[in-house]
Amino acid sequence: MRILVTGAAGFIGRMVVGALAARDTLVLNGQERCISAILACDMAEAPLADLAASHRRVHALPGALSDPAILARITEDSPELVIHLAAVVSGQAEADFDLGMAVNLQSTIDLINACRGMARPPVFVFSSSVAVFSCAANDTISEDTLPAPRSSYGTQKLMGELLVRDATRKGFILGRSLRFPTISVRPGAPNKAASSFASGIIREPLAGQEAPLPVGRDLRLHLASPAKALEYTLAACGLDQNALGETTTITLPGITVTVGEMLETLRRVAGDRVADRVRPAPDATIAAIVNSWPGEIITPRARALGFTPDAAFTNLVQDHMTAMGLSQS
Amino acid sequence: MRILVTGAAGFIGRMVVGALAARDTLVLNGQERCISAILACDMAEAPLADLAASHRRVHALPGALSDPAILARITEDSPELVIHLAAVVSGQAEADFDLGMAVNLQSTIDLINACRGMARPPVFVFSSSVAVFSCAANDTISEDTLPAPRSSYGTQKLMGELLVRDATRKGFILGRSLRFPTISVRPGAPNKAASSFASGIIREPLAGQEAPLPVGRDLRLHLASPAKALEYTLAACGLDQNALGETTTITLPGITVTVGEMLETLRRVAGDRVADRVRPAPDATIAAIVNSWPGEIITPRARALGFTPDAAFTNLVQDHMTAMGLSQS
Repeated sequence: MRILVTGAAGFIGRMVVGALAARDTLVLNGQERCISAILACDMAEAPLADLAASHRRVHALPGALSDPAILARITEDSPELVIHLAAVVSGQAEADFDLGMAVNLQSTIDLINACRGMARPPVFVFSSSVAVFSCAANDTISEDTLPAPRSSYGTQKLMGELLVRDATRKGFILGRSLRFPTISVRPGAPNKAASSFASGIIREPLAGQEAPLPVGRDLRLHLASPAKALEYTLAACGLDQNALGETTTITLPGITVTVGEMLETLRRVAGDRVADRVRPAPDATIAAIVNSWPGEIITPRARALGFTPDAAFTNLVQDHMTAMGLSQS
Repeated sequence: MRILVTGAAGFIGRMVVGALAARDTLVLNGQERCISAILACDMAEAPLADLAASHRRVHALPGALSDPAILARITEDSPELVIHLAAVVSGQAEADFDLGMAVNLQSTIDLINACRGMARPPVFVFSSSVAVFSCAANDTISEDTLPAPRSSYGTQKLMGELLVRDATRKGFILGRSLRFPTISVRPGAPNKAASSFASGIIREPLAGQEAPLPVGRDLRLHLASPAKALEYTLAACGLDQNALGETTTITLPGITVTVGEMLETLRRVAGDRVADRVRPAPDATIAAIVNSWPGEIITPRARALGFTPDAAFTNLVQDHMTAMGLSQS
């Protein structure tokens, strides 16, 4: 089977493409299938070319999902699996409303329309976010809680989920939307996600740099490791559509930690000198967004579907140190 | 103040334009204001011209909301109140997915973008529907129930609600979305709404015609009269934005009756000869859509905001007979 990954040059996109390229088969909609080609689509041409050069069966498809030529090419390729990760992150969607609407909503509409022209409805994995939720003060909620986003990012993702649900009901796609937890520790540079600090306060100190802390130590976060985000994505491809029923959205499990516990873990694992590199730098804009996100989400449905969270935050720190080749104190 | 009404040539649109033209002032966002002009926008030119000719201060704006020239004209006019009623009805949106997306979703996005260019954020009343809900078997739900539409119409309306909420939070508009009950007895010809029978089984027999009954007698409906729909719309314009808070959507109260009770009421008010004109004509497509709609909705928030339902279904039948000049048996 052919697979399309959008946002392939992004952080999760690169992981997903790499993992798919490293294996010969994947369970798709309940059945094990051979992987024949992986189409990696992204606007960032250079990293895409690197991906295609370093992995067999990976083909670069550089361009924007707003480009009719790219959409026509996707329809023509008729992948049996579409993993739609292309997105503008939360802080950027809040700062630039039009960009967020164009990328997070319109591209999803356009991509689903491209799927309608394919030989058969593809399995369609849509990356959503727990930012669709909001609560009074970083509360504990459940996967059945009424979403009520307090950001344009969360609004656009929730609109996308609804479209995926309806397009699945109409038989255009076999949709499954994943509400990802905040990913920590995300490698690379800080990005414009409001939750960027949740990786930065671990990653930067370990790399010998100071890290600003824009929020209070009592803030709770619902987190998953990069490895877990990849595992969730591949598991979502494999789910039997019948197991989802009409409810095509899955709120993924996460582990709940306070910012204070994250910093204590860093101190324990990496020592005082590293932990002391985190400096309070209150940011009202970031705090307003992330404070409205749930601190803990109870997810029995996702667990029944086979999704299990990371074991403990210590593992997230240790995994990152291992990946970066850092030794523990 | 200037007022824009979209879908002005439609059933509720004509009522709203007529009612606004008949009065000199309107409470807008908590303050009584003078009405200087009513811009009536619709694709149907002839009825629009009639509206403008028969009401003072009403100006016809013929065209589609997908036309950049119409949107530019709306921005330039800078109305302080936008009543956005233009829509494709449920049965039509289900039969023609692209048309539903274009009119029910894209036009709402475009109109809100037009508002962003105005001198000040207008009060924006968006007509949504209880079709955003679904339930197991015509169940009783509350205004806090998680919407889970089983129609493209309900999906598009729910996406519109989310956009209105976010655009209000961003300060682009002062939004309020109204989830209308099924309107009965709606005058005129049957339309492509899946709920069209809810008017047809009263209206057609009273007009001496046979009426098909596509659903069972046990089906419960959440109804409001045309007069109540108008009252709700004007009251929504008047609400103080602070009274809504972040929750810009209002699930409107309705009265709950079974189809059997509707037919008994018709028999009691208009006699056997009239009631016997209703003939069972099961329609699986219509039944599938309307059976997933709630039969009863508990709406304490809407009632606290001042919205009260009709008194009884008898009134809806009698109101229609009065409007049509029909005498009661």
